[in-house]
Amino acid sequence: MLKKIFIKAEILTMIDEQLMISNGALGVEGSQIIYVGETPNQEVLDQYDEIVDCAGKAILPGFINTHGHVAMSLLRGYADDLPLQRWLEEEMWPLEARFTNIQVKAGTSLSALEMIKSGTTTFLDMYDHMDTVAQVTTQAGLRASLCRGVIGFGSDELRKHKLNEAVSFATDWSGAAEGRITTMLSPHAPYTCEPDFIRQFVEKAHELDLPLHTHMSETVKEVQQNMDNYGLRPVEHLLNLGFFEKRALVAHAVHLTDSEIDVLWEHDVKIAHNPVSNLKLGSGIARIPDMLRKGIRPSLATDGAASNNNLDLLEEIRLTALIHKGYAQDPEVVPAITALKMGTQYGSEALFLDDQVGTLEVGKQADFITMDLTGPHMQPRHDVISHIVYAASRSDVLDVYVDGKALMRNRECLTLDEERICFEATQAFKAIVK
Amino acid sequence: MLKKIFIKAEILTMIDEQLMISNGALGVEGSQIIYVGETPNQEVLDQYDEIVDCAGKAILPGFINTHGHVAMSLLRGYADDLPLQRWLEEEMWPLEARFTNIQVKAGTSLSALEMIKSGTTTFLDMYDHMDTVAQVTTQAGLRASLCRGVIGFGSDELRKHKLNEAVSFATDWSGAAEGRITTMLSPHAPYTCEPDFIRQFVEKAHELDLPLHTHMSETVKEVQQNMDNYGLRPVEHLLNLGFFEKRALVAHAVHLTDSEIDVLWEHDVKIAHNPVSNLKLGSGIARIPDMLRKGIRPSLATDGAASNNNLDLLEEIRLTALIHKGYAQDPEVVPAITALKMGTQYGSEALFLDDQVGTLEVGKQADFITMDLTGPHMQPRHDVISHIVYAASRSDVLDVYVDGKALMRNRECLTLDEERICFEATQAFKAIVK
Ligand SMILES: [Zn+2]
Ligand SMILES: [Zn+2]
Repeated sequence: MLKKIFIKAEILTMIDEQLMISNGALGVEGSQIIYVGETPNQEVLDQYDEIVDCAGKAILPGFINTHGHVAMSLLRGYADDLPLQRWLEEEMWPLEARFTNIQVKAGTSLSALEMIKSGTTTFLDMYDHMDTVAQVTTQAGLRASLCRGVIGFGSDELRKHKLNEAVSFATDWSGAAEGRITTMLSPHAPYTCEPDFIRQFVEKAHELDLPLHTHMSETVKEVQQNMDNYGLRPVEHLLNLGFFEKRALVAHAVHLTDSEIDVLWEHDVKIAHNPVSNLKLGSGIARIPDMLRKGIRPSLATDGAASNNNLDLLEEIRLTALIHKGYAQDPEVVPAITALKMGTQYGSEALFLDDQVGTLEVGKQADFITMDLTGPHMQPRHDVISHIVYAASRSDVLDVYVDGKALMRNRECLTLDEERICFEATQAFKAIVK
Repeated sequence: MLKKIFIKAEILTMIDEQLMISNGALGVEGSQIIYVGETPNQEVLDQYDEIVDCAGKAILPGFINTHGHVAMSLLRGYADDLPLQRWLEEEMWPLEARFTNIQVKAGTSLSALEMIKSGTTTFLDMYDHMDTVAQVTTQAGLRASLCRGVIGFGSDELRKHKLNEAVSFATDWSGAAEGRITTMLSPHAPYTCEPDFIRQFVEKAHELDLPLHTHMSETVKEVQQNMDNYGLRPVEHLLNLGFFEKRALVAHAVHLTDSEIDVLWEHDVKIAHNPVSNLKLGSGIARIPDMLRKGIRPSLATDGAASNNNLDLLEEIRLTALIHKGYAQDPEVVPAITALKMGTQYGSEALFLDDQVGTLEVGKQADFITMDLTGPHMQPRHDVISHIVYAASRSDVLDVYVDGKALMRNRECLTLDEERICFEATQAFKAIVK
């Protein structure tokens, strides 16, 4: 298999023992990392088929976006600045009801392109028409954890049909795209799925050894509604339904009590923190510093671009490093390196892919990005981690690799046709909005 | 004088009566705007010396950054994640004491470059070695309101010397660079200047008809200290010193009571809101929604890059539209268009330049930028204001004009040598850090 080595870079491994390597090199054979360390001498370099000079660049793990609805990029900027329930029920759902495979393909392609151009290599998607999402993912070359998100309204029959669809999708696509696609089972939320329906998902997930994913405790209103309907806050409610017995990932977890944080920690429940979406929808500010103190390792996510309005994970990393300091009036909470780990290493844990990606280590899959360190906003080049977290921009991402394969080189996307995707997104949007 | 017209753009005037013009055109003669409206017919176009096709671009007023210390970009990423007083007293001041004209020139040039590349056309600077700052501003082609920021420590003689220096600078440079430079007088803060010294600034400002600028109520600790020392919160303290009698701009104003907001409103005191810096230093979250409800029109600023760590005003605009929604748990506070006005129109008011810049109107100076609307993160092109505020990135800024003169075209800075400035910044930084 072809052996490549990327040399003379500032390498951020995300491994504490050797966090940064100056004048570093990353060796790749096929889809795997075979060397991480200082740039070796010429004799060693001669053993590689290709040598890539990365002077003036950082190399770091690709960003991992652990919660979203990528097809919704088609509704970017539509009906902004409304509260969650109104935005969802009055604006998003009616339009999404008109989505066919055409809209899902267009929206997903647009998102895949945007993610690649901003350095994301792995994403989670919870949506409908998931075969289409999986096909686009395969073509784009991205890594993804995919699940059919099921809203449990309608007849018993309809629900049964949706559950079967979710299960078929999860079993059919698990391990597809040379292993880049993994799957989960996902009831949409406790406020859209009856307890009994959620329990069916839990049983299926345990039977098939699949992780579970859902929205939880995004707004005060939703927590209150859960208490009104079931006499319990969402964490205890899901706990009672067995949701946390095996592998589980919850999105949001904004409104938590101390004892709910304890429960999540005890059951090793993974968290997808969506700072921009939570701010934009006025949902609130999650208790990330308290979670970190407890030992929870929250990951980062954009949610759908319709409530964000972009898929820039670096922006989520920066905001995470900023908002919790201001909110707690404590500049020492969530240091830059923690925010960066949340967007990479902790993300791989949240998707149960930490044996494969999330850090730069020998034996892991070669999912990494390079970032330009030469822009004026990156000078003087004193502290690369600080600069990437606080000063860089998504456009500083130059190259993106997944499984050792280049998806973008020098900001040109190699797997997707940018112009065509932008055109088709506009067409698909116009077809559903009068 | 040469007449140019920029056609086929999405024009954001920032004037409510005609906020957006599709297929719009901006006509410029010399340094002034002579036409804003729909793209005219060929007969009219023929009267112009140059026609610039702006299809696929937005044209909007350049961003206005109303508080900062541009030379401090040299300390970007140095001693991150510390509380304000410790960061300032133990880390920044000792290093800044080693600043000579070399460091100030290098840091200011780096900042000027970064501001141009992110679409800022006007900035306020409060610092030392201000002749150098003014010289760099002149060369860069930017517009600026400059003031010698005076820290009132030391002997009476030293303070007198500093005040004189501040006054000489303000009178010497007012109206320089073909009118692009205006000046203010600026005691650094109530916690670094005795009341009596502040009063001397107030008197000089009134005598010379110059605006006043200072830091105010950035942290809880500083407000408490003011009460301990003078028995008053900072707003009443400055009010008693006559600071708000004529034109005044205060930076931060994070910790305010209702009655302090009333006083600021009654005296038409301008506010520079620094969301990123306030978050990063753990200072807190300013009461922007309450100020807006009262009728105050706060402007936006980055503060020095050492506490930010960039000079990207678009990021401040986005954060302003996001954090107040999340903090107030109300998605309807600070709509996108308000945040955009804070970064343009309200900024011009804060610097007392609203007769010249801040909106696109016939008779104003031609300070404007173009932004690329064709990136994947800007599709579908449904709501341009929403996209610019919530989805765009600084790298979408393509062209920057001040007084009708191009400072950047298609992301190439025309007035400054990018490579040389980055090199010199590194050298100047190394010279003061061992
Ligand atoms: Zn979601
Ligand atoms: Zn300041």
